[in-house]
Amino acid sequence: MCGTDSANGTPAANSNGAPKSNGNANFRSNPYQPVGDFLSNVDKFKIIESTLREGEQFANAYFDTETKIKIAKALDAFGVDYIELTSPAASEQSRKDCEAICKLGLKAKILTHVRCDMRDAKLAVETGVDGLDVVIGTSSFLREHSHGKDMAYIEKTAIEVIEYIKSKGLEVRFSSEDSFRSDLVDLLSLYRAVDKVGVHRVGIADTVGCASPRQVYDLVRTLRGVVSCDIETHFHNDTGCSIANAYCALEAGATHIDTSVLGIGERNGITPLGGLMARMVVTAPEYVKSKYKLHMIKEIEDMVAEAVEVNTPFNNPITGFCAFTHKAGIHAKAILNNPSTYEILNPADFGLTRYVHFASRLTGWNAVKTRVGQLGLSMTDDQVKEVTAKIKTLADVRPIAIDDADSIIRSFHLSLSEQPAAQNGEAAPVAASA
Amino acid sequence: MCGTDSANGTPAANSNGAPKSNGNANFRSNPYQPVGDFLSNVDKFKIIESTLREGEQFANAYFDTETKIKIAKALDAFGVDYIELTSPAASEQSRKDCEAICKLGLKAKILTHVRCDMRDAKLAVETGVDGLDVVIGTSSFLREHSHGKDMAYIEKTAIEVIEYIKSKGLEVRFSSEDSFRSDLVDLLSLYRAVDKVGVHRVGIADTVGCASPRQVYDLVRTLRGVVSCDIETHFHNDTGCSIANAYCALEAGATHIDTSVLGIGERNGITPLGGLMARMVVTAPEYVKSKYKLHMIKEIEDMVAEAVEVNTPFNNPITGFCAFTHKAGIHAKAILNNPSTYEILNPADFGLTRYVHFASRLTGWNAVKTRVGQLGLSMTDDQVKEVTAKIKTLADVRPIAIDDADSIIRSFHLSLSEQPAAQNGEAAPVAASA
Repeated sequence: MCGTDSANGTPAANSNGAPKSNGNANFRSNPYQPVGDFLSNVDKFKIIESTLREGEQFANAYFDTETKIKIAKALDAFGVDYIELTSPAASEQSRKDCEAICKLGLKAKILTHVRCDMRDAKLAVETGVDGLDVVIGTSSFLREHSHGKDMAYIEKTAIEVIEYIKSKGLEVRFSSEDSFRSDLVDLLSLYRAVDKVGVHRVGIADTVGCASPRQVYDLVRTLRGVVSCDIETHFHNDTGCSIANAYCALEAGATHIDTSVLGIGERNGITPLGGLMARMVVTAPEYVKSKYKLHMIKEIEDMVAEAVEVNTPFNNPITGFCAFTHKAGIHAKAILNNPSTYEILNPADFGLTRYVHFASRLTGWNAVKTRVGQLGLSMTDDQVKEVTAKIKTLADVRPIAIDDADSIIRSFHLSLSEQPAAQNGEAAPVAASA
Repeated sequence: MCGTDSANGTPAANSNGAPKSNGNANFRSNPYQPVGDFLSNVDKFKIIESTLREGEQFANAYFDTETKIKIAKALDAFGVDYIELTSPAASEQSRKDCEAICKLGLKAKILTHVRCDMRDAKLAVETGVDGLDVVIGTSSFLREHSHGKDMAYIEKTAIEVIEYIKSKGLEVRFSSEDSFRSDLVDLLSLYRAVDKVGVHRVGIADTVGCASPRQVYDLVRTLRGVVSCDIETHFHNDTGCSIANAYCALEAGATHIDTSVLGIGERNGITPLGGLMARMVVTAPEYVKSKYKLHMIKEIEDMVAEAVEVNTPFNNPITGFCAFTHKAGIHAKAILNNPSTYEILNPADFGLTRYVHFASRLTGWNAVKTRVGQLGLSMTDDQVKEVTAKIKTLADVRPIAIDDADSIIRSFHLSLSEQPAAQNGEAAPVAASA
């Protein structure tokens, strides 16, 4: 999918926005680049942002009204399609906050997430939301150990609740919970029944985080043939597949993806908004860049991280401190020639910059050469190789900082100016800007 | 795949080790549970642990000899099949460390990762390693901007290097770099050629982290039909798919997965060892639990996190602080009835424990009931509901700690003992151990 818009099968500009060159002609003709696929929605998906619902279920989350409003406004400015809020049935303050956010007049539609229960639905429609996300557990685990209802009861209640919400002129989604451990035939029957009464979306939820990508693809593709409404998907990250599963769901025809900022939610959370953007901007750069304000990702993540008192993971896609740091000599050389060689994401798209780490024993002379230029010094390639060896020798003994490496370069350069020039037979000095 | 061993299509015990009950008969007959698949290696994969190679390319990594040995011993005790080390060509100390680790007499085979270059290969075979992982860039990006070699040259050099390593009686892998942006036909031709000269493994590397799961599946499956040797795969995590991609590679017939502890590596790293274990123990519990010492994951992650001065991500699979924390009332109730309802991973498998968060506005009376029992108090269900309402009311105004909630419970309990018993019409008190 790399750099190619898979939905229409046409080659796209790569993620660095570089024009298509002859250099990647082979890449474009790779048969493993997807050809046109009428099921795929990778370039026309919508985001249901659930930081204020799923995210509130995160161990550390306590959002007061002010914080909820700040987060909702930021998500709206970023460009998410929907903002999902905790059920007004959860607590009195949850109900009030829901009303307050509905009154903000955001561009994003406001949803609230309620149990498949008429009391919850009635409370929710009074808050001014644009729609309700209705959910009920359908796996044998949940039917036995949670609500204790059978499928006939679930279907009957679902239809009642859906028809009620529709009668109020609101959007309604009906989702199963723990869909990947539910009986497939039961699940499809239920979805078909709610589709017939005009539900706007059905939802598939990997509530326990057990689903694998190809399993997701198969289930969504099958469901795509059963219902005519939209398909929303929700993936927990217990086994580390939440981004990949969301991606495969879109390939199979899902229309909406649930996310939260940094993925916060029950246990280790769900598909993270930023991580999904990393995945999708590689696949559908035009769609993603035109629709979402990618340069806001860091600020929104920082806001939420502060609110729930966590650090952004060191290895977070896009915003992890090292996401655009290159270290090995072989990588550094190529990156300096053309960033696309080792970067599928362009840091500039996110308002960030790349960093080539040259102060280590894994460094190469190309990285050092660039640093020599940055320091405004001139050396021949052989001289750069000589000073690179000195840096590697020190870095082999102990960790060294940029300052240490710079000192070695400067002192080496100083020693050069005290010797006759071009002593090593290479006449042309490296331009300082190389 | 949840709880089912997909490789042989037979139902397995679920990940919590619970015996198969009638309760999940529907689950086992779900057609989306994989049937037998002769390609799949999800229950017989091997791990090539690259913390001491890829991990050394992580921005913060500087491993002295002592640290390398400590990490190598821990990985060996955990049960990884291979330990991959930085090329001895990188620096003199790298070479010495490689020799030192080879002399430890570990059960794991020791590999080193070298460029496809006879000089590097000669240096490496002298260190006492069991095998060499040879790599060269094959994408147009790398051929143009890194080494500048054409495919004919690559193939000729590869064969020379492979035959040399084999002549020394060592194991040899040949991998392309940036495989997913390489021309497919060129790639397959190259792999076929090295397979013919008896390479032990070919490697596919998503060096830039652009690959998506179904793309991985397709490429590995195609390759599986072209070569007879083993297939190793290496996935970067720039777009958050490194675990899922590894999983799909195994489904398609890959035999070896590259990992690093916490996923450390260039940029935001590669498939993390712990995250991969989370994915695989759900799929193939017997294989994974019998082969790998899962309870060591936390200690190994802590060791590496300390060595590279990072925190374990809050949302890390298994070891993130909240990986087994349940908060929403609806979740807590079911978890207390049967942990499998909302947990696909059993914390006990990793030497960890679950925690049901009851001190929040999202809490439910079932969670509070358990806490009442933990505190050694007795209350009727109606009394628990009453005190739950008090906790929710306070938690709706401000974040509350466990101590706060406990105080509310104790003070409520005290007030009960000052009143006539069973005042609310429910005679049987809840057992303290409920």
